[in-house]
Amino acid sequence: MKFEVTILGSSSSTPIFNRNPTAQLLNVNEKFILIDCGEATQNQLLHFGLKANRIDQIFISHLHGDHYLGLVGLLSSLHLNGRTKPMDIFGPPELKEIIDLQFRHSQTFLRYPLNFNVTNPSKSSKIFENYDIVVESFPLDHRIPCTGFRFTEKQRLRKMIKEKIEELNIPTEQVQLIKKGASFTDKKGKVHLAKDLTTDADRPKAYVYCSDTICSWKYLDFIKDSDTLYHEATFLHDMLARAEETFHTTALQAAEVALKSNTRKLLIGHFSARYRELDPLLTEAKTLFPNTFLAIEGMTFEI
Amino acid sequence: MKFEVTILGSSSSTPIFNRNPTAQLLNVNEKFILIDCGEATQNQLLHFGLKANRIDQIFISHLHGDHYLGLVGLLSSLHLNGRTKPMDIFGPPELKEIIDLQFRHSQTFLRYPLNFNVTNPSKSSKIFENYDIVVESFPLDHRIPCTGFRFTEKQRLRKMIKEKIEELNIPTEQVQLIKKGASFTDKKGKVHLAKDLTTDADRPKAYVYCSDTICSWKYLDFIKDSDTLYHEATFLHDMLARAEETFHTTALQAAEVALKSNTRKLLIGHFSARYRELDPLLTEAKTLFPNTFLAIEGMTFEI
Repeated sequence: MKFEVTILGSSSSTPIFNRNPTAQLLNVNEKFILIDCGEATQNQLLHFGLKANRIDQIFISHLHGDHYLGLVGLLSSLHLNGRTKPMDIFGPPELKEIIDLQFRHSQTFLRYPLNFNVTNPSKSSKIFENYDIVVESFPLDHRIPCTGFRFTEKQRLRKMIKEKIEELNIPTEQVQLIKKGASFTDKKGKVHLAKDLTTDADRPKAYVYCSDTICSWKYLDFIKDSDTLYHEATFLHDMLARAEETFHTTALQAAEVALKSNTRKLLIGHFSARYRELDPLLTEAKTLFPNTFLAIEGMTFEI
Repeated sequence: MKFEVTILGSSSSTPIFNRNPTAQLLNVNEKFILIDCGEATQNQLLHFGLKANRIDQIFISHLHGDHYLGLVGLLSSLHLNGRTKPMDIFGPPELKEIIDLQFRHSQTFLRYPLNFNVTNPSKSSKIFENYDIVVESFPLDHRIPCTGFRFTEKQRLRKMIKEKIEELNIPTEQVQLIKKGASFTDKKGKVHLAKDLTTDADRPKAYVYCSDTICSWKYLDFIKDSDTLYHEATFLHDMLARAEETFHTTALQAAEVALKSNTRKLLIGHFSARYRELDPLLTEAKTLFPNTFLAIEGMTFEI
């Protein structure tokens, strides 16, 4: 199944050099999830030809403006464009207050149900699941309460060996049962065990999103063994003191987290406005973790 | 003195077709005023190479998102970029609540003073003046409380006739006094009246900004005899019923307002997302008021 992330913003705090504040669009089997929603996220969706109305869940990590200021505009536009299907939002409790206040004063009564789900910034918990994935939030360590998110594919059924279907004349309606473990008896009365008709299911993949945080090992347990890890890398390591003071991470530290958490691929983003050129951040991270990529606007990464 | 307006957004309700929601930058003698601040206004300022930190006053007409959702992001960025000089904001009282709530939850403590001035959507009043201009707000007629703004240059001193300075050897320190009406006695003892040494001052110019409103004659008194009138023109006149239902104006009606209010130049904007091409709106307005222009992104108009 499709499992990929498209980057809509790579900038920390302020938009600059054609970089936008943080937002990412996750495609999970052609269902769409938005992760954070900095100002002008709806413009970015338009710009990249992505349909905002296909988004059904929005996860907001914390209440610094560069991670959520585009939310009310996006929700309003969906309303004005006639959305009727529900939208699920996951975020800090105060976010609901912010949304409600603005809709109250603009006298906006959404045409679609907005389901608000409060995240807990102090402990890890499963906050959402559907047929395809499970989403867990976990605490990060920032200046204000902040959560990361882990998106893990559900365990799939075993895969049918196509040749066996033909060979044994297996009816279509039996295939699902066999994938789930049922045996199959052929016309001659011979019993075939499910394990002989199928191969192992694909290993469930995981995408981990670590927005703003000081580099710490407290959240290592929640992010380990992912297939792709997004981790903020606001500064180069020569700015470590500044990173610690502002509860952010350096590119080298992000690579260290990637290494220690045993991910396969690292995406770095949330770059300080001081860096017009991003290559030094990439180079620094790669010294420790070669499979690192810049999470910049318009890039799509397979998880 | 310089008195001109640069358009940062021309779209109604949602960003589309590279059109942004409403915002305008007014240059009054090289001092800058922002009028409305739709989402991504700070991106538009960056895009057009305009320095956000030169803005000292922001006027917000009403609390529909397309007129103010860029404000908190802009104020945050100014803070993060080290602004220390005060910012004056003029808008509905509820706007303060919206700003305060978001800064409280992001734990943002601005490094610069933010002076909030409440506008009154039910009666016209002078809300600001400096050496160069006077700003008045006046009621418009929209779905929620909404004010227009009138920016009028201050009456200037009379203009000195340069030749007289040389001819009569008038000392520099006397010039200001003469402009203010003082007589001048030359070396031979002859008294010259101020009116003979000066010419009439330039007539003070006025810019009127009518954001969202149903077309009505209630606000005609407040907008008459302007040099440039910005008036919303959300729809073509064949959509009059829809315009009235949503408390908006058609291009033809905007032209009628221009005509009746005796303005010299009409700018139309706030175009519905249904119009990819804007020429029909311009053509329609011009049938009644030929000196009409499309107020689109990046255009600068002398008042």
